[in-house]
Amino acid sequence: MGIVLKDILAALPKDGQDAVCRTDIYLQEDKIVGIGEMPKGFSQDRVMDGTDRLAIPGLVNAHTHSYMALLRNVADDLTFEDWLFKNIEPIEDKLEPEDAYWGACLAILEMMKSGTTCFSDMQMHIHQTSKAAAESGMRAVISRGLVGSGDNEAGQIRLKEAYEEKEAWKDCDRLTFFLGPHAPYSCDENFQRIVAGEAAKNHMGVHIHLSESRNEVENIRSQYGASPIALAKRAGLFDGLAVAAHCVHMDEDDLDILKECRVSVITNPASNMKLGNGFAPVPDMLEKGINVCIGTDGAASNNSLNMFHEMNLLGLIHKGAREKADCVSAREIFRMATINGAKALGMERQTGSIEIGKKADLAILNLRTPSMTPRNDLLAGLCYSANGSEVETLIIDGRIVMEDRKVLTLDEERIYAEISRICKRLGIEKF
Amino acid sequence: MGIVLKDILAALPKDGQDAVCRTDIYLQEDKIVGIGEMPKGFSQDRVMDGTDRLAIPGLVNAHTHSYMALLRNVADDLTFEDWLFKNIEPIEDKLEPEDAYWGACLAILEMMKSGTTCFSDMQMHIHQTSKAAAESGMRAVISRGLVGSGDNEAGQIRLKEAYEEKEAWKDCDRLTFFLGPHAPYSCDENFQRIVAGEAAKNHMGVHIHLSESRNEVENIRSQYGASPIALAKRAGLFDGLAVAAHCVHMDEDDLDILKECRVSVITNPASNMKLGNGFAPVPDMLEKGINVCIGTDGAASNNSLNMFHEMNLLGLIHKGAREKADCVSAREIFRMATINGAKALGMERQTGSIEIGKKADLAILNLRTPSMTPRNDLLAGLCYSANGSEVETLIIDGRIVMEDRKVLTLDEERIYAEISRICKRLGIEKF
Repeated sequence: MGIVLKDILAALPKDGQDAVCRTDIYLQEDKIVGIGEMPKGFSQDRVMDGTDRLAIPGLVNAHTHSYMALLRNVADDLTFEDWLFKNIEPIEDKLEPEDAYWGACLAILEMMKSGTTCFSDMQMHIHQTSKAAAESGMRAVISRGLVGSGDNEAGQIRLKEAYEEKEAWKDCDRLTFFLGPHAPYSCDENFQRIVAGEAAKNHMGVHIHLSESRNEVENIRSQYGASPIALAKRAGLFDGLAVAAHCVHMDEDDLDILKECRVSVITNPASNMKLGNGFAPVPDMLEKGINVCIGTDGAASNNSLNMFHEMNLLGLIHKGAREKADCVSAREIFRMATINGAKALGMERQTGSIEIGKKADLAILNLRTPSMTPRNDLLAGLCYSANGSEVETLIIDGRIVMEDRKVLTLDEERIYAEISRICKRLGIEKF
Repeated sequence: MGIVLKDILAALPKDGQDAVCRTDIYLQEDKIVGIGEMPKGFSQDRVMDGTDRLAIPGLVNAHTHSYMALLRNVADDLTFEDWLFKNIEPIEDKLEPEDAYWGACLAILEMMKSGTTCFSDMQMHIHQTSKAAAESGMRAVISRGLVGSGDNEAGQIRLKEAYEEKEAWKDCDRLTFFLGPHAPYSCDENFQRIVAGEAAKNHMGVHIHLSESRNEVENIRSQYGASPIALAKRAGLFDGLAVAAHCVHMDEDDLDILKECRVSVITNPASNMKLGNGFAPVPDMLEKGINVCIGTDGAASNNSLNMFHEMNLLGLIHKGAREKADCVSAREIFRMATINGAKALGMERQTGSIEIGKKADLAILNLRTPSMTPRNDLLAGLCYSANGSEVETLIIDGRIVMEDRKVLTLDEERIYAEISRICKRLGIEKF
């Protein structure tokens, strides 16, 4: 299918930033094949009028736990321990695999409606998430959550599941599989070393939670004599493609390791605040040249999966915490939400920017909204005034998955009905 | 006109909080006349089906500068001085009164679309704002911005304008007028004293910016030997109804003064971060029993006028800054955005909660959205997962001003066209 986005404003990469200009964009099958000029042999099936519209690269939500959309607004304003052990885990224990499928559908619905075209998930129910992503037309990186010590059996079973799932979807190029050693407090050094070896052997990336809370850092230091980040390096987890979520509590050595090992960091501003963990040192990481991208984390600790929300938080909180209005710019944040996320996932040649040869992963916003009026600095608008409801059309892999805010690849009413049924069974639907 | 909201979920006050329950709500003319039971003599013109809907009291945006919607996304990621003196003021100098009218229309459009039914404005162009508010059906408190030293002529002219405007709208009970001495650095002690006397004589509330930046506090202390808050008290500004915006940098004495003088504080989380001023001590103010409400500030320093955005920020930033996940709850924040705002403006008997006898100022949200699914803690949802686009219907003073997200009292397309024309003239429309 050939689609022309005609006479549209678009955020295009220019000199290491993005700049908005008016152009035509040509999409053929799954790819962007022309910008400004119609490529030879282009076969046009559909013209989309770009009047009052802004095309941006689809957003990359680089860290979430999609099935947790089921647990949205279920436990709030609680300390981390009360939140996790008294509220979230008891419900998770009752989850059936099918629940996770509908949770993932709800999460994908929400992400599509707010401009996300690729998400990176870590969890146990990978088959259900892969299925939901494949069916919905979403691009996804699925990491099997791994928990273990040494070469224990549970860890081995989970590794096997990860490989089976990867094999099962080898023909769907929208799905990529990573290994997800959960965190240093749930994976001991030996198990981390095993996972590192497995990742290398199977050419898979590694996705881990690191240095999320002060407690974690203190405990790991006293147990191993190393910070969570130094420990992960020592275990070999940073030898290949590695992405680390959170990284809130770090010292200068940690920053040096991340930079030197080319580890990408996924910052999760809402979640880090909501659970009382604080603010990640994003301005310092950017200054150091670390690749920083953005995640929403799961809906139980956010409570939304809206990347516009995270962009906005990033634009504000560091200015507030450092009392420095010119730290972290809208331009930097827009890259963190797009190309930096693609880089983190090893997909920078596929997605994350509007460039010829890349996959056609685009979000199109309606600018005829109060939030984007007047039309001055539109990148600032994406970061500071938009809320995600401006996204009208979403294209993933060249396929229109949402138009006029209606998601075409998911049955929205069915999802609400199934979620209601499941949440009644779990005792968490109150109205 | 008699309207029944039939079988609807509603946030109703209960034991000093709000609780969601299913009920019927009866509106007659401008008032809420029944909850649960149809009042005698009720004449029913329209039934609105409450299935999948949540009614909340309309939000109160207690501090903004509406015309600045014109300056949205015009100057971002800049230090306060570069922002104000190099960017905002040069444009403001070119503004014509008619520009301010269309700016106010854009602001009201945005506020209505995100559930606000009452806003409190401070500025110079009060006639244009009053006109826009009156025409659109909005409830508004308009404060003439006052700047002056001693009994200088400029200050006197502005006071006269404030009285003339108040007189001109004496028959429109949706409009209330306050005096708006701008700030201690723009109104010296003598002028503050004059304004305090005028406010008392004319039975008007006082709306002022106080202790927004560290610089301000230091300068006022060195000039007057008193904090901005202590100075305002000394000048008599707290003798009557007084609301103070910002209050970011305070000591214990300041908190005591605010409590003792029953001054309401309007916290503006986005603006205080955006301009690098920091975080107001909201948890401390709540603990002290100070009435705290919420403002968006102007769109030039936010950059949205969406109260859901502010509620969300309030729910997150103090947890982050204090590394304390249970400080400031969604329940407290919901009250700050509703009844506390009404109290601050002296309107708690009129608006801010769904109670019999109060004005019919309500926002109705569609719950069939990812953000409000599943239906667990809906007040947490309002604070943490909603973004304002869930608001479908808005009723102010018993009049349906928005339905199916279409604002019925403003010409949305005309507003965009006029803003575009004005911003082209001002040189701030780029696309």
